[in-house]
Amino acid sequence: MTGIKVQGEKRMVLIAGRAHHELAEQVAEELGIELLPASAYDFANGEIYVRFEESIRGCDVFVLQAHPFPLNKWLMEQLIMIDSAKRASAKRITVVSPFYPYARQDKKHRGREPISARLVSDLYRTAGADRLMSVDLHTAQIQGFFDGPVDHLMAIPLLADYVRSRVDVNEVTVVSPDTGRVRVAEQWAERLGGAPLAFVHKSRDISVPNQAVSKQVVGQIEGRTCVLIDDMIDTGGTIAGAVNVLKQGGARDVIIAATHAVFSDPAARRLAESGAREVVVTNTLPIPPEKRFANLTVLSIAPLLARAIHEVFDDGSVTSLFDGVAH
Amino acid sequence: MTGIKVQGEKRMVLIAGRAHHELAEQVAEELGIELLPASAYDFANGEIYVRFEESIRGCDVFVLQAHPFPLNKWLMEQLIMIDSAKRASAKRITVVSPFYPYARQDKKHRGREPISARLVSDLYRTAGADRLMSVDLHTAQIQGFFDGPVDHLMAIPLLADYVRSRVDVNEVTVVSPDTGRVRVAEQWAERLGGAPLAFVHKSRDISVPNQAVSKQVVGQIEGRTCVLIDDMIDTGGTIAGAVNVLKQGGARDVIIAATHAVFSDPAARRLAESGAREVVVTNTLPIPPEKRFANLTVLSIAPLLARAIHEVFDDGSVTSLFDGVAH
Amino acid sequence: MTGIKVQGEKRMVLIAGRAHHELAEQVAEELGIELLPASAYDFANGEIYVRFEESIRGCDVFVLQAHPFPLNKWLMEQLIMIDSAKRASAKRITVVSPFYPYARQDKKHRGREPISARLVSDLYRTAGADRLMSVDLHTAQIQGFFDGPVDHLMAIPLLADYVRSRVDVNEVTVVSPDTGRVRVAEQWAERLGGAPLAFVHKSRDISVPNQAVSKQVVGQIEGRTCVLIDDMIDTGGTIAGAVNVLKQGGARDVIIAATHAVFSDPAARRLAESGAREVVVTNTLPIPPEKRFANLTVLSIAPLLARAIHEVFDDGSVTSLFDGVAH
Amino acid sequence: MTGIKVQGEKRMVLIAGRAHHELAEQVAEELGIELLPASAYDFANGEIYVRFEESIRGCDVFVLQAHPFPLNKWLMEQLIMIDSAKRASAKRITVVSPFYPYARQDKKHRGREPISARLVSDLYRTAGADRLMSVDLHTAQIQGFFDGPVDHLMAIPLLADYVRSRVDVNEVTVVSPDTGRVRVAEQWAERLGGAPLAFVHKSRDISVPNQAVSKQVVGQIEGRTCVLIDDMIDTGGTIAGAVNVLKQGGARDVIIAATHAVFSDPAARRLAESGAREVVVTNTLPIPPEKRFANLTVLSIAPLLARAIHEVFDDGSVTSLFDGVAH
Amino acid sequence: MTGIKVQGEKRMVLIAGRAHHELAEQVAEELGIELLPASAYDFANGEIYVRFEESIRGCDVFVLQAHPFPLNKWLMEQLIMIDSAKRASAKRITVVSPFYPYARQDKKHRGREPISARLVSDLYRTAGADRLMSVDLHTAQIQGFFDGPVDHLMAIPLLADYVRSRVDVNEVTVVSPDTGRVRVAEQWAERLGGAPLAFVHKSRDISVPNQAVSKQVVGQIEGRTCVLIDDMIDTGGTIAGAVNVLKQGGARDVIIAATHAVFSDPAARRLAESGAREVVVTNTLPIPPEKRFANLTVLSIAPLLARAIHEVFDDGSVTSLFDGVAH
Amino acid sequence: MTGIKVQGEKRMVLIAGRAHHELAEQVAEELGIELLPASAYDFANGEIYVRFEESIRGCDVFVLQAHPFPLNKWLMEQLIMIDSAKRASAKRITVVSPFYPYARQDKKHRGREPISARLVSDLYRTAGADRLMSVDLHTAQIQGFFDGPVDHLMAIPLLADYVRSRVDVNEVTVVSPDTGRVRVAEQWAERLGGAPLAFVHKSRDISVPNQAVSKQVVGQIEGRTCVLIDDMIDTGGTIAGAVNVLKQGGARDVIIAATHAVFSDPAARRLAESGAREVVVTNTLPIPPEKRFANLTVLSIAPLLARAIHEVFDDGSVTSLFDGVAH
Repeated sequence: MTGIKVQGEKRMVLIAGRAHHELAEQVAEELGIELLPASAYDFANGEIYVRFEESIRGCDVFVLQAHPFPLNKWLMEQLIMIDSAKRASAKRITVVSPFYPYARQDKKHRGREPISARLVSDLYRTAGADRLMSVDLHTAQIQGFFDGPVDHLMAIPLLADYVRSRVDVNEVTVVSPDTGRVRVAEQWAERLGGAPLAFVHKSRDISVPNQAVSKQVVGQIEGRTCVLIDDMIDTGGTIAGAVNVLKQGGARDVIIAATHAVFSDPAARRLAESGAREVVVTNTLPIPPEKRFANLTVLSIAPLLARAIHEVFDDGSVTSLFDGVAH
Repeated sequence: MTGIKVQGEKRMVLIAGRAHHELAEQVAEELGIELLPASAYDFANGEIYVRFEESIRGCDVFVLQAHPFPLNKWLMEQLIMIDSAKRASAKRITVVSPFYPYARQDKKHRGREPISARLVSDLYRTAGADRLMSVDLHTAQIQGFFDGPVDHLMAIPLLADYVRSRVDVNEVTVVSPDTGRVRVAEQWAERLGGAPLAFVHKSRDISVPNQAVSKQVVGQIEGRTCVLIDDMIDTGGTIAGAVNVLKQGGARDVIIAATHAVFSDPAARRLAESGAREVVVTNTLPIPPEKRFANLTVLSIAPLLARAIHEVFDDGSVTSLFDGVAH
Repeated sequence: MTGIKVQGEKRMVLIAGRAHHELAEQVAEELGIELLPASAYDFANGEIYVRFEESIRGCDVFVLQAHPFPLNKWLMEQLIMIDSAKRASAKRITVVSPFYPYARQDKKHRGREPISARLVSDLYRTAGADRLMSVDLHTAQIQGFFDGPVDHLMAIPLLADYVRSRVDVNEVTVVSPDTGRVRVAEQWAERLGGAPLAFVHKSRDISVPNQAVSKQVVGQIEGRTCVLIDDMIDTGGTIAGAVNVLKQGGARDVIIAATHAVFSDPAARRLAESGAREVVVTNTLPIPPEKRFANLTVLSIAPLLARAIHEVFDDGSVTSLFDGVAH
Repeated sequence: MTGIKVQGEKRMVLIAGRAHHELAEQVAEELGIELLPASAYDFANGEIYVRFEESIRGCDVFVLQAHPFPLNKWLMEQLIMIDSAKRASAKRITVVSPFYPYARQDKKHRGREPISARLVSDLYRTAGADRLMSVDLHTAQIQGFFDGPVDHLMAIPLLADYVRSRVDVNEVTVVSPDTGRVRVAEQWAERLGGAPLAFVHKSRDISVPNQAVSKQVVGQIEGRTCVLIDDMIDTGGTIAGAVNVLKQGGARDVIIAATHAVFSDPAARRLAESGAREVVVTNTLPIPPEKRFANLTVLSIAPLLARAIHEVFDDGSVTSLFDGVAH
Repeated sequence: MTGIKVQGEKRMVLIAGRAHHELAEQVAEELGIELLPASAYDFANGEIYVRFEESIRGCDVFVLQAHPFPLNKWLMEQLIMIDSAKRASAKRITVVSPFYPYARQDKKHRGREPISARLVSDLYRTAGADRLMSVDLHTAQIQGFFDGPVDHLMAIPLLADYVRSRVDVNEVTVVSPDTGRVRVAEQWAERLGGAPLAFVHKSRDISVPNQAVSKQVVGQIEGRTCVLIDDMIDTGGTIAGAVNVLKQGGARDVIIAATHAVFSDPAARRLAESGAREVVVTNTLPIPPEKRFANLTVLSIAPLLARAIHEVFDDGSVTSLFDGVAH
Repeated sequence: MTGIKVQGEKRMVLIAGRAHHELAEQVAEELGIELLPASAYDFANGEIYVRFEESIRGCDVFVLQAHPFPLNKWLMEQLIMIDSAKRASAKRITVVSPFYPYARQDKKHRGREPISARLVSDLYRTAGADRLMSVDLHTAQIQGFFDGPVDHLMAIPLLADYVRSRVDVNEVTVVSPDTGRVRVAEQWAERLGGAPLAFVHKSRDISVPNQAVSKQVVGQIEGRTCVLIDDMIDTGGTIAGAVNVLKQGGARDVIIAATHAVFSDPAARRLAESGAREVVVTNTLPIPPEKRFANLTVLSIAPLLARAIHEVFDDGSVTSLFDGVAH
């Protein structure tokens, strides 16, 4: 037979954008590897230049980037890295975006709006991505935006196990800060052993005729330890408002738990002053020192990402890792 | 100058699958046109044959199909019609699927599941569809599954205006039958003038320690006229269960309102016997006589579809039609 | 060098739709494996749900489905399974459709018809199929409809070897039941050692001036054992009519041989009563007990499929298996 | 409303490759237009340069090319012209290839062969073609190779009407030169009022035991005027051999009719000396003087092409033009 | 005939990103229209939100954006606007990017680099762009990166006509600041009536053995008025260095002319102090007051863009506008 | 676990078109393998038929073709070979085109021209190519035309090392024959230790007022050994003209060095008579005996290609091979 035959072998590399070096290092350490050496810098007019210092030909490549402010820059950097990896003959490219950019723009609310979350999936695909890994997508339907396999990791077990260690679950009510996340609150409630639910909502008080609309709690929270949950905290307005309503409604205590700490100003101040006992988040986004405050707890998402990356490389089952709720 | 020059002109045609002839006729009548004459029949082994009896070269084509049982057949018929239209040189093909097939499979709940709602969008696209029109998608994110413009029509104004004529809105509470549709209940509440919200949910009764989980209402419904809303009613189990819980919780009255009357057995019996005062649906799906019952009201969706089709053909704004909530 | 290196390994799994469990089991047994455990069931409105019970990440996946009535359902099930496999990170997905659906709609006979056979190829591709395996395509050109490798297996050797054991090849004439399959009859004739050919056709009898057109045989069949061949038998009308003409034309005996036993009503009765000595088919489609009759012989296609699947997995040569006529 | 509004208008242009200037001029004349002025020439190493001398922005462009020897060159020229038209902002590009290149390679006969006819469709598509027009495709399935509308024109009416004027149809037998075109012979037979059929074939003579295989006629041709049909005549070997067999079999007369006069050497000599009374072809391919002979009749395909082009531009129905058999 | 027929009509709208409002207003004014009213703002974490306030269904849409610092943001805004326009049913979308982003990254200099200029073209395409308009691409080959028509406008006539009014062309030498733009210098030279050429380059002085490499001029510039040309001026280092070498080499005078005034720090200071008599640029990029200096001349590119946009909308010839050098 | 598991293994094969058998054999020999046995021949009308005689299922396939006259034929043959390989289930297909066809048509010079170099990349992609390997592309931007990895090999080290052995580098001036290749001349100059540069150009002699434009040298070449470089020599007119101007300008000696010896007539004669001391080229294109002349030196490109092919197969780094300038 003509040709050359050799035994196969496969190699995995982790490439990181510049947006959240700490997380990248943690993931690499969990994997027991070094990050791929790469050059990445900005030209004076904002153009980004990227080059990998080592061959990645034939590799299983993971391109990890976080998406804090200025997120358009970090997204473009990630796209350019994917393009580089494609042209450098990577065998497979997996985008790892712990906080999926533009996730909130996942539908048209009104006419002539974009669906930017779909656009982002298509941009990843165009640049050369074969698969996508993310944590706690704003809506699970975003999985369907990407034309390929998606590993949708969940931080609820990580967060809920921590919260469980801090409260008496019999006294807990899980609270959604608005009408859109009651389903997620239900998942939390199951994880916490079947806790009751409530949500905060603008409504008329039906006991007082003709009263103006105001923020109210639907569900019983009096005397309860409220676990106020959300996927992300941006400016913190909604969530701090919800703490206030809960407190006024007689809640004994409020713990805020969210996966993505976007923490745009004035989130840190609002949360610190909200009256919540504790704010628990993960480090899917970098949290600079000036945005940290006394009762903030940051859990590392790195072990979850590292296990998922390893499973993908091994062609193992991501499902087995994530508590049966998986993927 | 070489070549031939002529003035432009454009023509629109409406093609209907066989699944819901009545709706197709209603839409055509609203548009003031005839349906395009077409042959469509089944071979003995189930293969479908389609042929249009008139040229549609250069036309703006709308392919309307409903998706009741057996929906895989009607979906394939629609795909084959789209293929025919593409090969017959239609200028533009708009899929009109009032009830979007497989809408509930819009994400992976667990590993190794399909996202069939995305698959359906891709199949439409592959067959040759340029745009998509549908009514009350199960989740609005499905808009992002289709790689092109989507006209997402809403039946809430139609349903809510009817309901408003049947109740005293000051006595209404809008109820979601589970945790996943509280946001939609909120839209209903706004349409009904700021009515209060409630939802039905499996939970522990927090006033009784260690009690088993059971179905409960979160929100105040005692003495209220409950408008129990959903996007679709399939076997009717959840919705009938919710009526029961609401009645037990002291609701004065229950009206059920939903866009898509899937009505799989035993939905008709369950709804008829549920104790609800009235069940209001639209005809996005055909409702055969044996599935109709005394207090069922069916509103026609045809005027809404016809107006949207005309706007698309005119390159007008679909937004202007649909109450400002639009698309 | 950064990253992780491991030795490669590859795994193959066989996934079967619900249309023809017996064939799936036979193929699995030939391969010496179990079918992949999977859930697949119908919702009341006809929507299909699929889930694989085991990880298939990185696997070489074969999705076997037969396409009897109701074939649109089985086709959609197969598409959904392909989508599941894609999203579950299969390395390569091969569609195995022994009887290619809509194969007869492979061209436009008149204007404004679909080319449904091409549509089916595109739907497979869109769902995520990388390659296609089928048996005795209605026309070999269908191979060109799929944008990827196609394994076109041939049942003629299987059928012809059986027929050869039942006849004296020196007395055989191979007969095409119409003008479109004379080329295939020729392949049979070669396989049977250069037997003469004939075909059945509507024509005027040239020996009688002005006579009306009627069904006639072109070629000499008097006193011969006619092997009447076709790729598929649907309602059996054409083939039973051909038996009649052959008998009237003095044929000593008729054996019918076809790959695909579609057997739409009233095929079983027609064939049983046709006067043919024997009807030989394969099990590319399930043949329920009520469609079986005395002189029907069903040969299993499973060994052929299993060998081809194994060769594809091994990156071996499918050609070598199939008698030199191969692919 | 912002923006500028103007009335629409559309313009059609005909662009011709260099392979068959005469046909291009005939088509233009039938359309009553000039060919678009264009530069096209070869660099010394064989590269082709193309430029249109007039704007075609927004035009409905038809790119006509014939494909005689050296057909790879003419195909590349056509692809380059399509690319030019795309980049020059043509609104729609229709490929007009009267003789579809590589049509005979429409399936894999054996393993590891290309399906070049599909490849050609894909190359057209890649270069920028929106639709395809061709005459008498070798197999009708080639329509399904192109991912878009195909106008499949038929020369049989043109050829058959001419032949009918030259024979007594009651004495005609239509003969296929091999087993693969019996279906086409049947279409001819219908067009000629239900004439009988025959075909030529390599077979054993069943009346003589153990005789070697030789070329024989199946069907009755003694004393008949045989119309020997084919879609194309390449080197003429098969067709001239068939004439010989027919003559030996007692045919009174033979007329050869084919759409595409490929006429590779030594076709002209073979045909001239074959003993056929007349050879009738069309000018889908150029026939240089040295390949013309005494009893050759060439019918112009230009009127058919011009009518089809005009119908496409008008968004009219090509079907209506072509005798009901059409597309 | 079924369906509705109406006369066609077409409408054009101009949509502008926020990066360079002044240019957008100038182009709109040249076109005699208003910019399409649109909302565009940043969320606190950097995500961009866009909505058009008027229907653009069926319109010919031009999406104009400039790309100064921070260019990744402006690029994402433009992509989101294109996506909005696609989903709002624009008939055709033309990207207008006067300064093409990442144009300098148009090839791989070394291994494992991206080709970001190609990536940008693909991102535009993915978002929904049908065509692309730009001015003085860094290399003309970038036209080939976009899979569709490209209008490549040239500012040389605008710049050269201005320069010609400021110099005696008989005394001019056109100088390229490095070896890569000598071809462009040649185009300038032709425009200025056949002026001689020179370029600046690092080289050994061949008249002095073993001398170190230093910056030198190749070509005669002594006593000449040097027109030092480039497509863009970024930090100004190369160009200011070139002025210095020219002055030292005896040039009487230097005029700098470039299309794109990127002007990253410290360009303004360097140019002001370079010793050049005048610096001539266009406003393809905004030049804020603090980057303007005494001898800077800014020519407006708006008339050129407006004419080209109008020609595209009219399906006229862009070529005719731009001096025969065109597109 | 269900399914079959086996160890991976990979095999490489080299397939060669018929255009340059000698080069193919050299590359195979360097790799220590045989060329894949294949049938390839022309039908009389110019259609090409291809078939591989050995299974290539699962192989890493390299399809090597040279592109001399008639290059459209060789290009089509290569496309057909790629299609064959795709349909024969190659795992990966790398196009090896040492001289990239249509490389000079890499941009639009004027309106309504094609960008044939991009078209060629898209045709390769459509046929099934995964990656592309070529030597000294006319412009490096062509890398960006192909949507996948490109290995851009450079012959400068090979040519320059040879030239260095033939000259005293202190006396060398590197000369570009026109304004478009001064950048490449600079790369040569660096390779030869920092030699000075010059270029030939049509210009006015500024020392003589009003003189007509004529060919002149910019840069100092008197008494120097001029190395006149280009990427390709086609008819040789420009290069021979440049030799003449250099000689007239006092050059002591001229050596011509180019990668691609297109050598269209009358290149061989012109070069032989040009007065150049030596002409050095590579064998990326076949040079038939009648185009060889006394002072022609042909260096083999085979070792470079073989090493690059091996590196790609090994998933090693092509960069390491090519002198750091690489890819």
